[in-house]
Amino acid sequence: MSVRLIPRTPSAYGFPLLIKNILRTPLAYYPDREIVYRDKMTYTYVELNQRIQRLANALEKMGVKQGDTVAVMDWDSHRYLECFFAVPMMGAVLHTINIRLSPEQLIYTINHAKDDVILVNADFLPLLAAVKDQMKTVKKIILLNDKDGTPDTPLNLDDEYENLLAGSEPAYEFPDFDENAMATTFYTTGTTGLPKGVYFSHRQIVLHTYGLMSGLCAYEAQAGINSGDVYMPLTPMFHVHAWGIPYLCTMLGTKQVYPGKYEPEMLLKLIVSQKVTFSHCVPTIIHMLVSSPAIKQLDLSRWKVVIGGSALPRGLCKAGLENGINLYTAYGMSETCPLLTVANLKPHMFQWDAERQVEMRCRTGLPVPNVLLEVVDTEGNPLPHDGKSAGEVVVRSPWLTQGYVGDEEKSEELWANGWLHTGDIGFIDPEGYLQITDRVKDVIKTGGEWISSLELEDIISRHDAVSEAAVIGVPDPKWAERPLALVVLKPGAEAETSEEELKAFFAKYAEDGVIPKYGVPDKVLIVDSIAKTSVGKINKKQLREDYK
Amino acid sequence: MSVRLIPRTPSAYGFPLLIKNILRTPLAYYPDREIVYRDKMTYTYVELNQRIQRLANALEKMGVKQGDTVAVMDWDSHRYLECFFAVPMMGAVLHTINIRLSPEQLIYTINHAKDDVILVNADFLPLLAAVKDQMKTVKKIILLNDKDGTPDTPLNLDDEYENLLAGSEPAYEFPDFDENAMATTFYTTGTTGLPKGVYFSHRQIVLHTYGLMSGLCAYEAQAGINSGDVYMPLTPMFHVHAWGIPYLCTMLGTKQVYPGKYEPEMLLKLIVSQKVTFSHCVPTIIHMLVSSPAIKQLDLSRWKVVIGGSALPRGLCKAGLENGINLYTAYGMSETCPLLTVANLKPHMFQWDAERQVEMRCRTGLPVPNVLLEVVDTEGNPLPHDGKSAGEVVVRSPWLTQGYVGDEEKSEELWANGWLHTGDIGFIDPEGYLQITDRVKDVIKTGGEWISSLELEDIISRHDAVSEAAVIGVPDPKWAERPLALVVLKPGAEAETSEEELKAFFAKYAEDGVIPKYGVPDKVLIVDSIAKTSVGKINKKQLREDYK
Repeated sequence: MSVRLIPRTPSAYGFPLLIKNILRTPLAYYPDREIVYRDKMTYTYVELNQRIQRLANALEKMGVKQGDTVAVMDWDSHRYLECFFAVPMMGAVLHTINIRLSPEQLIYTINHAKDDVILVNADFLPLLAAVKDQMKTVKKIILLNDKDGTPDTPLNLDDEYENLLAGSEPAYEFPDFDENAMATTFYTTGTTGLPKGVYFSHRQIVLHTYGLMSGLCAYEAQAGINSGDVYMPLTPMFHVHAWGIPYLCTMLGTKQVYPGKYEPEMLLKLIVSQKVTFSHCVPTIIHMLVSSPAIKQLDLSRWKVVIGGSALPRGLCKAGLENGINLYTAYGMSETCPLLTVANLKPHMFQWDAERQVEMRCRTGLPVPNVLLEVVDTEGNPLPHDGKSAGEVVVRSPWLTQGYVGDEEKSEELWANGWLHTGDIGFIDPEGYLQITDRVKDVIKTGGEWISSLELEDIISRHDAVSEAAVIGVPDPKWAERPLALVVLKPGAEAETSEEELKAFFAKYAEDGVIPKYGVPDKVLIVDSIAKTSVGKINKKQLREDYK
Repeated sequence: MSVRLIPRTPSAYGFPLLIKNILRTPLAYYPDREIVYRDKMTYTYVELNQRIQRLANALEKMGVKQGDTVAVMDWDSHRYLECFFAVPMMGAVLHTINIRLSPEQLIYTINHAKDDVILVNADFLPLLAAVKDQMKTVKKIILLNDKDGTPDTPLNLDDEYENLLAGSEPAYEFPDFDENAMATTFYTTGTTGLPKGVYFSHRQIVLHTYGLMSGLCAYEAQAGINSGDVYMPLTPMFHVHAWGIPYLCTMLGTKQVYPGKYEPEMLLKLIVSQKVTFSHCVPTIIHMLVSSPAIKQLDLSRWKVVIGGSALPRGLCKAGLENGINLYTAYGMSETCPLLTVANLKPHMFQWDAERQVEMRCRTGLPVPNVLLEVVDTEGNPLPHDGKSAGEVVVRSPWLTQGYVGDEEKSEELWANGWLHTGDIGFIDPEGYLQITDRVKDVIKTGGEWISSLELEDIISRHDAVSEAAVIGVPDPKWAERPLALVVLKPGAEAETSEEELKAFFAKYAEDGVIPKYGVPDKVLIVDSIAKTSVGKINKKQLREDYK
C-alpha cells in the first residue's frame, strides 16, 4: 500500500527545472523587446541572449568550472542581469555581494562563500581594495566600468567586462544537470553576529518565478504585471535577486530598465522616458520619490509599485495614491527567495471606502499558491484567523532556503518542526490576510500574553512632544517581562512634558480598548538619544542590555 | 568539477509539488466563489473542499488504498471535479474513462488500468453492464445519479455518490508523499489498434497548471483567464483532464460551471445565466453553437474560447468573431498533459488587418514557457523558422507522459532521441508560431519531399462540385509514394465533372505556386463514399490499404 511512483527516466523526467529555460520564451515571443541600462545602453532580448553566451565563454576560458562561485559587486545593471543567467546556467553559483556591508562583513562573506571570481564595479574598487590581502579563494577580478580608462586601484584587475565579452563567441551550449544544483547564494545580516549565507537551487528559482507569476499576474490584482509592462527594480539586485522579478520579467519578455545607482533624478527620468509601469521597493525609496518636488509635474498614473522590506505606512500609501502611484504590499525575506504573500485586494474590497482599501493595501497580504503559511502559538499550534490572535509566522513552500551555509545550529532553529520560522509576529484576519505586527525578538512577553513593541511605539509617536521612541521588554520577576518606553522629546518640549504625562497618554489608549491594560508601559523614560545599528535601525538588543 | 547539489532534506525539500496544494489558495482568496452544476447544484469552494474530504473518507472506508485505481464515467460535473482532487490527493490514481469507447475498448481499458472502483453515471450503466462479466479487477461500483430512485441495471451497485458523501466526515488529513507519485491515467485511441494508456504524476500536473497559467494569464493575450473569469469546459473532463483547466481555475479561485452532457440549449443557457467568460472546445462544438439560431439573440462579447483538438478553420474563426466570441487556438495532445502552444497574438499584430489577425489566431501557436519545441527533419535536425520548412514536431517539457502503460516498444518510439514525437507535421514561421500541416502518417513522401495531404484536401474542397475528399499516398516504384485523390461529388454534379477536370484544378494551384508541381496528384478518383473511423474521422489507414 503505497503511491505508485513514476521512475525518473531520461525521457519524461529528462526535463529538469533549469534557469536556462526561462530565457527561451522571450526569444520566441518578444525578441526585440528592450533591456535598458540608464542612458548608457539599450539592446534587445536577442542581444541579451548573445551576451549571456559570450559571458559564459569568457568565464569558462578564465577557468570557471561547475560548482565554482562567481561573485558580483554592482549597482542594478544589464551586466547583473547577464550574470543572473550565465553563471547558474553554466552550473556555477552566483554570489550576489551586498555592497553595503562593512569591510569586516564583506571579506567574511567573500571567504565564506569561497568566491573564485569577483566582478566588481569601479565604484566599489576602494571597498574591495581595503580587504584585498585577506581574500583566500579569489583567483580573478573583473572590472565593471561605465567610464573610459582604467581606474587607479591597488587591486590586480584581470580584465574588463566589455572587453571580455567582445573577445568571446556568442554561442555556448549550456548543459542540462540536476534541478537541485545550487544556483545562487547571498548573505543576510541581522542586527548582530556574522552574516548568514542562504542559497537557492535552479528548481527553487524556476518555481519561485511561477510563484511570482501567480501572485502578480493571475489574480484580479489592482496592480499585476504582464508581458506588456515596463519593469524597473528599486530594490537592489544583490538583495534576494531583486525579489526574483528579473527572472519573471525575462520569462514574460517584459521590457526591463536598470537604473544603476539609485539617484532620484535618474530614477524619475527613466520612469518617465522609458514609460516604466512596474517596480518594487522599500518604503524609504518611495518616500524619497514622493517627497521630491519634481514628482508633482509627472504623470505616474501608470506606475504600479509593490512595497516590501518593511511595512507600508498608511500615510505613505495615501501620498503615493494621491500622486497616481498604485501602491500595495508584498512580503518575504532573504530566506524565502523571497515571495510569500501579496496584498492583492479581493474584488468586493473595491466597494469599500478609500480608508479601508488603504488598510488592505498596507496589510502584509495573502499567501500566493504553493505557500503554506500559518501563525502559531509558542507550542506550534495554528491560531485562528480572527484578526487578533498573534503568533509567529511559519511557512512551507518549494522555494525556501534549506538553511544557512555551514551553520547547522541556526539552520535547525530556522526549520524547527519542519516549518521555516520567519521570526515575525503577526495575525491573520478573517479575509485570510496576514498582518505582521512585530519581530519575535522584539515582542514583549508579559504574563503569558504578547504585546507588540511596534504598536506601542506607533501610539507614543502620536504625542505632539515626541520626536522618537522605542519600546522594549525588561525582565520582571512576576510577569516575565514588562514594557519600558524610551522617548526622545522634540527640541523645546522638555519643559512642558513629564514622564507621567506620557504614561497617561498610553493609558488613554488602554481605556479606549486600543491596547490591553497590561500593555501600558510601567515606566516611560525621557532620554537624550536611542541606540541605532549601523544601518540606522533602532538597536533593541543594545537597549535591552542597557536597560535590563 | 560538477554542480553543487543541494541534498534533499525534510526541510526545504519537504515540500513536494502535490495536487492538494492547488486547493488551498481559493479557500483563502475566494472561499465563497461558486461551483455550478447545470441548473441542479451550486456551492462554494469551502463546500467543494468539504465534499472532497467526505469523498476521500468514503473511498477509504470502501477499501481504497494508496496506489489503487479509481475510475470515473461521467459527463462534466462537480462530482468529476471532486474526483480530480480527492482520488490523487489520497495517493490513489484517477482513471478518467473515455465514455465514447466501443464496449471492446472500454473493457480493455478497465482491465488494463486495473480499476478497483468505478464511479458511473446512470446514463452509462447500459454501457458498463454490457461488459460486466469481463471485468477482472473491479471491486466496487458507485452510482452517480441526477435523478431520484435507483435505475434498473444488472450491475451490482454498491452505493450512491451523494449517499456516500452524506455518510462521511468532512475532514480528511491528506498525506504528503513523493511528487512523482502517479496521479492520473487515461487512454488515447488511434484510428487502429488498442487504446494506449498515458499517465501523469502530481509534479507534472502542478507544473502543467503553472504552464497553463503562463500561457493564459501572463501575456498580453487577447483572451487570457484570471480569477475574475467564469469558466465552463466544452471539451470533456475525461479527455486530458479537460486540458487541466479545472486545476488552473481552482488554483485561481475562478468560478466554475459544469454543464453535464453537452446539449446546445443547456450550454447557451448556462453561458448566459452564469455569465461564462472562458471556455475551451473543439471546432465542431463551437460550430454547432455558432450555427444555432438562438445565438443571434445573445451577447457573447465577454466569451473567450480557446480552440484545440483540431485546427480552427479561418471561416469558423471569423464567424465566431462576428458573433462577438473571442476565439484563438491552443495545441497539445493526450501524451502532453496537454498544453504545448497558445496562439496569443503579439502586440504589433493588433495593428495588422483583420484577415491576418484571423490567420494568426488560427495558427497552432507559440510554445508556452518550459516547453521546448522544434520542427525536425527525418534525421532529427531542427529546421529553420522560415514559415515553410516542414518536419515532425518534437517537444520536451516537464509535463509529458513518460510513455504508454506496459508498452515498451511504443514508449520508445514516442521518446526516440530524448524528444517526444508528436506525430504531427508542421513548420515554424519567422514570428515563432508553429503551424501544424498534417499528421506524420498521412503526409505523402515523394522523391524525398513531403506533401501535406490536408493541404491537397483543402484545395480540392474549394471546387464547387466536391462534397468530400481524401488524399493519400500510394506506393510508387520511382518516387516511393505519389498522391492519390479520392473525391465524393455533390448530388447532381456527376454528369458535368470529370476526373481530368479535377486533376486540372490541382494543376492550376501548382501553376500559381501554391503547391509544388510534384504535389499534383497523379490520379483523381471519383468515388461513392470515403471510409471513416468510429468517431467519424477519415480512415486513411483503411484507404491506403484499399487503394495500394
